[in-house]
Amino acid sequence: MCCHNLAFRSVDSEGLFCYYKTENCKDRKDEMMIRIGILGYGNLGKGVECAIAQNADMELTGVFSRREPSAVKVLTAGVPVYSIDSLPEKKEDIDVLILCGGSATDLPEQTPKYAELFNVVDSFDTHARIPEHYANVDAAAKKGGKIGIISCGWDPGMFSLNRLYANCILPEGKDYTFWGRGVSQGHSDAVRRIPGVRDCRQYTIPVEEAVDAVRAGENPELSTRQKHTRECFVVAEEGADLAEIEKAIKTMPNYFSDYDTTVHFISEAEMKQEHSGLPHGGCVIRTGTTGREGENNHIVEYNIKLDSNPEFTGSVIAAYARAAYRMNQEGLNGCKTVFDIAPAYLSIRSGEELRAHML
Amino acid sequence: MCCHNLAFRSVDSEGLFCYYKTENCKDRKDEMMIRIGILGYGNLGKGVECAIAQNADMELTGVFSRREPSAVKVLTAGVPVYSIDSLPEKKEDIDVLILCGGSATDLPEQTPKYAELFNVVDSFDTHARIPEHYANVDAAAKKGGKIGIISCGWDPGMFSLNRLYANCILPEGKDYTFWGRGVSQGHSDAVRRIPGVRDCRQYTIPVEEAVDAVRAGENPELSTRQKHTRECFVVAEEGADLAEIEKAIKTMPNYFSDYDTTVHFISEAEMKQEHSGLPHGGCVIRTGTTGREGENNHIVEYNIKLDSNPEFTGSVIAAYARAAYRMNQEGLNGCKTVFDIAPAYLSIRSGEELRAHML
Repeated sequence: MCCHNLAFRSVDSEGLFCYYKTENCKDRKDEMMIRIGILGYGNLGKGVECAIAQNADMELTGVFSRREPSAVKVLTAGVPVYSIDSLPEKKEDIDVLILCGGSATDLPEQTPKYAELFNVVDSFDTHARIPEHYANVDAAAKKGGKIGIISCGWDPGMFSLNRLYANCILPEGKDYTFWGRGVSQGHSDAVRRIPGVRDCRQYTIPVEEAVDAVRAGENPELSTRQKHTRECFVVAEEGADLAEIEKAIKTMPNYFSDYDTTVHFISEAEMKQEHSGLPHGGCVIRTGTTGREGENNHIVEYNIKLDSNPEFTGSVIAAYARAAYRMNQEGLNGCKTVFDIAPAYLSIRSGEELRAHML
Repeated sequence: MCCHNLAFRSVDSEGLFCYYKTENCKDRKDEMMIRIGILGYGNLGKGVECAIAQNADMELTGVFSRREPSAVKVLTAGVPVYSIDSLPEKKEDIDVLILCGGSATDLPEQTPKYAELFNVVDSFDTHARIPEHYANVDAAAKKGGKIGIISCGWDPGMFSLNRLYANCILPEGKDYTFWGRGVSQGHSDAVRRIPGVRDCRQYTIPVEEAVDAVRAGENPELSTRQKHTRECFVVAEEGADLAEIEKAIKTMPNYFSDYDTTVHFISEAEMKQEHSGLPHGGCVIRTGTTGREGENNHIVEYNIKLDSNPEFTGSVIAAYARAAYRMNQEGLNGCKTVFDIAPAYLSIRSGEELRAHML
């Protein structure tokens, strides 16, 4: 990358870090980069790695894994892979550690543990346990004088932000969230556990009529079944009872029984060819009224269509890693969510540039 | 309003103001309310007034006008109207002054002037002059130890925020903004200045094919003419030369000459019946790529449909008035834009509530 394309850090009149381009940058490369570490190298870890390459002020210092480091091949040339056990030794070499593990068991343990040593960002998405996770990360981050950003991605994350903004603007109204069309990893896994199933890809699909009714301002009351359908592409073991598998899927409590579900049996070749991606998307809609007697209607919609769920999530996380770094440089610490972070912290551009070109 | 529906201020563990509901609130009504003043009582001032009534922690203290106060009738019972000249005397009675004048001549003078005395919020929308306005308001607000939020509304405002977030998440991509279908006050006024025109309502309309192409991820390069059309409903003076008026509209530089414009001549009765509202809307779309070689596409869209442009703008401003008040209570001062304000400041709910229910 030509150094003229790189951004350099400075402090602007408000005491915020800002970034500016310079032609006189040869010796400053090391000083200017936000040094990122990735813990956990699955789909999300790779998504974060790709995002770092798009942000001129970030560099990937290392990937940390529970696997044997020599067995992990990363996408970025020259980036070392370390054992998770060596993380504490790297305290001085990493500005922000991005935690790419799962919400069920990894993050509840890892985020508080490492928030004492590093600025961290995670994508913890077990909504019901967020208050508890927040408290744990807050205590650890304050102890270490670090910033810990939790629940970062698109839901929780960008969808939460849009729910919040729209609720603050339209206090009298109604919220709708639709997910999909996209692959649900959790539902795909649930089907894979059924005897006779070799592989499955489950798509969550918003019911078009429901979305249309919301967008038309009809404020419908929608049951679970009326909001989403589910579609499963299943590779069965040879000789498996397909009718039995279909019945097991459609009646599975929590996952499928409250939905209209379609099941397609396909070959392994078709699975590989047609369903290897991880697309997702969805929308957050708030409808609300204003006026003397609520006579005026307003519809606010945030809508995303993603070819790659983990790469988009990784891209959101990378932007918030910049915020974590900057807030900590300003002396802030503790746990933060997307609600607590001024949008300007996410941008490589200075306040002056943002006001002049993006406001 | 039943006091059980009112929210009460407190300070949470992070030192932020939070709001909680209580049943034991009788004596605290005065203490808890954010006292708002409105300067300028046109469409926007009325929109802000309606928004204040929807926010349980705000009360309208007074409306200030350049007109003779007795000639101004407000919507809220018991709210006094004062001359603009009496504003300095009300310094202790108003927590946030909302400036509802125009960007051409009112706000460049009023916002810096009153930011020294009050926390203020304005909707300054002359994009090219934002840096200058920011500097003036910043100096005044710092001198007075107040917060001045400028350029608040939907564009600049919510559209700017969505441009910023999407740019930070997808550094490699392309931005599109479409306005409408909605009434442009500036274009309506321009037509009204043509000899023979008694009244006009001008609608700005996005070209559907262009929006569809952007949503389909085609990343089109679009000229001004390819993005929007303009539609004018004109009431002509009796005996006016309609062909001449139509020609004068369609060839007007800056306003219409770069667009495909349709002109309809209608009666005064039809104008009143069909075009008395001020609807607007539009969308901000960013398309971007991620992945090792940019192989994955993403589309992020923020879309609003508003029955009343001034009431929605007033509702955004009311939420930011809460932020201005809180930030100032925390000891902050100076000029801020939507980019500088953490979303949680906009909400009547505490950080704990937001994390538990909206994240």
